[in-house]
Amino acid sequence: MEAERDPRALTRRSMLFAAGAASLATVLRPGITLAQANDPLPSWNDGAAKRAIIDLVVATTTHGSPNFVAEGERIATFDQDGTTWVEHDPVYSEVLFSLDRVVELAHEHPEWKTSEPFDAVIGGNKSAIASFAKAQWEKIIVATHTGVSVSDFNSAVKAWITSAKDRRWQRPYTDLIYLPMLEAMSYLRANGYRTYIVTGGTQAFVRAYAEKAYGIPPQDIIGTAVGTQFNGANGRMTLAPKLVLNNNFSGKAEDIYLFTGRAPKIAFGNTEGDAAMLEYTQAGGGASAMLLVLHDDAAREFAYGPAEGLPDSKIGAFSQALYDKAKASGWQLISMKDDWKRIFSWQ
Amino acid sequence: MEAERDPRALTRRSMLFAAGAASLATVLRPGITLAQANDPLPSWNDGAAKRAIIDLVVATTTHGSPNFVAEGERIATFDQDGTTWVEHDPVYSEVLFSLDRVVELAHEHPEWKTSEPFDAVIGGNKSAIASFAKAQWEKIIVATHTGVSVSDFNSAVKAWITSAKDRRWQRPYTDLIYLPMLEAMSYLRANGYRTYIVTGGTQAFVRAYAEKAYGIPPQDIIGTAVGTQFNGANGRMTLAPKLVLNNNFSGKAEDIYLFTGRAPKIAFGNTEGDAAMLEYTQAGGGASAMLLVLHDDAAREFAYGPAEGLPDSKIGAFSQALYDKAKASGWQLISMKDDWKRIFSWQ
Repeated sequence: MEAERDPRALTRRSMLFAAGAASLATVLRPGITLAQANDPLPSWNDGAAKRAIIDLVVATTTHGSPNFVAEGERIATFDQDGTTWVEHDPVYSEVLFSLDRVVELAHEHPEWKTSEPFDAVIGGNKSAIASFAKAQWEKIIVATHTGVSVSDFNSAVKAWITSAKDRRWQRPYTDLIYLPMLEAMSYLRANGYRTYIVTGGTQAFVRAYAEKAYGIPPQDIIGTAVGTQFNGANGRMTLAPKLVLNNNFSGKAEDIYLFTGRAPKIAFGNTEGDAAMLEYTQAGGGASAMLLVLHDDAAREFAYGPAEGLPDSKIGAFSQALYDKAKASGWQLISMKDDWKRIFSWQ
Repeated sequence: MEAERDPRALTRRSMLFAAGAASLATVLRPGITLAQANDPLPSWNDGAAKRAIIDLVVATTTHGSPNFVAEGERIATFDQDGTTWVEHDPVYSEVLFSLDRVVELAHEHPEWKTSEPFDAVIGGNKSAIASFAKAQWEKIIVATHTGVSVSDFNSAVKAWITSAKDRRWQRPYTDLIYLPMLEAMSYLRANGYRTYIVTGGTQAFVRAYAEKAYGIPPQDIIGTAVGTQFNGANGRMTLAPKLVLNNNFSGKAEDIYLFTGRAPKIAFGNTEGDAAMLEYTQAGGGASAMLLVLHDDAAREFAYGPAEGLPDSKIGAFSQALYDKAKASGWQLISMKDDWKRIFSWQ
């Protein structure tokens, strides 16, 4: 019964192999210590969520297991906002980047001072910003995310992500990445999984920091994507104002197929925008694990639903319908309060 | 002067490592023997093309070289039709698949017998097919490549690719893959390169056979892509009649960025549709190699240009302008006649 072997032994060997292959850096991510060599998920309390992850890894990596998956086919996908980092402080980090970027670019666009929605952003009119409609956000995204070379955009994001601070903890946004998710990524990679970010945020934004923050290289970032225009005469690749991939809802499943050609074995999300990704994972057959983060910890992070009587939310809502679907489908809830011993690496 | 070390020694060590890691199958592709352990490109005659490939590998994989590239960033891209396999027998293989597929599906579509362009295909009217306009080809592509689940389409391609025979040699189309290109792929992979197919053909078509034919898995196939529609209720991913990626000309460079986030270090093509991919490679900085296959061997394969007085061609034309641009840009021509000792594995 090889499938019943001690999962920690498996991890220990895999991690030693990974270390031997000189990729220690991918195992020991920020905040992760050698304690992982004994417990692959030390920031997780023992419980159904932690067990679901370990069971999936054991089932898919144990030779002779009926659910064994060849190494090149081991795919793990992670939504980002609300799944791998905070999305409520007070809103998605990329939105905050966009607003800061409007202010930064304002001197190149004197006309913005008197044209909406830019005037409200430059003037710091929070109530106007809070009531922006979709068309206004689109103007801001086009102004801040397109018409710029991919390398210049990358530099702008890198500069912002290393200097901007969040409102509540006054820390860089990459400090708001959940330590248990970094552990899950490292554990999966140490067991031959390829870990992807699959985000409604833009691919170009996440690519700028994901390698350092998550140990995930640019080719493993699947996101909402604007088009690019390559100019052979000067070799420049420029972000263009055309939506190519809308990476949300069914788009997440479709883009995972576009990038990988197969369904994930394990997927992590936290909203209805992730449901199709979890359905695709489950439909792939064999062993699979589908997990949803429930934000039920106002003291250490935030609490919002409206599922199960948690406060309602405009950002990252977890509806009762999604909760019921998860229960009916055998998807695993991750309670931040109960399942996570620690939430951030610096806590 | 580490950069001057014997490239064969480097290859030998890398290949032994690869073999040790139980991936012998990726090194020893069909038609490739252990002779490669002494000469990484045994089907290539000594000359500038072979040297360009080896020099690039040595420059980018030798620690201490000013052009050293970290393993995860070593990207090699290959156009398919006319670059890795025959495109002139008499036309792109995927077009022949589409025509065969119309005949195969005809019993489900009795109306096709009296509606163009399907009537001509079913009736085997070669002169009508030869004069199809773009709109007619689009009807055929929509009818044969969409409205079907990705797994059913995959099965259809697999069945065709293992049974259909080419006109001239009466062999499966995968036998028309160029042995020197398989060697180049294996050599690059043995040296830490990730090899991508970057084709104007459709991604779904190439994915069905590329792992077996080239040792390239589905996630490393970048192609023209129709959209997909994921249905969460039944878990089906269906190919949809909407063009998402037009993977030709500047689209090749743009889609390489979409999938990988960076420029290749080495790229192989054979027409103007590949020029942007080569420009992107060259613009990436550091050492790079850009190569174009010139079909100048009517005896062993085909001869067409119209560059350098070769016969003109409707399929895969190599214009004099492209030839001149290659010469002016330092791109390397691969003469099938002069650079390739063998063309097919069975010859």
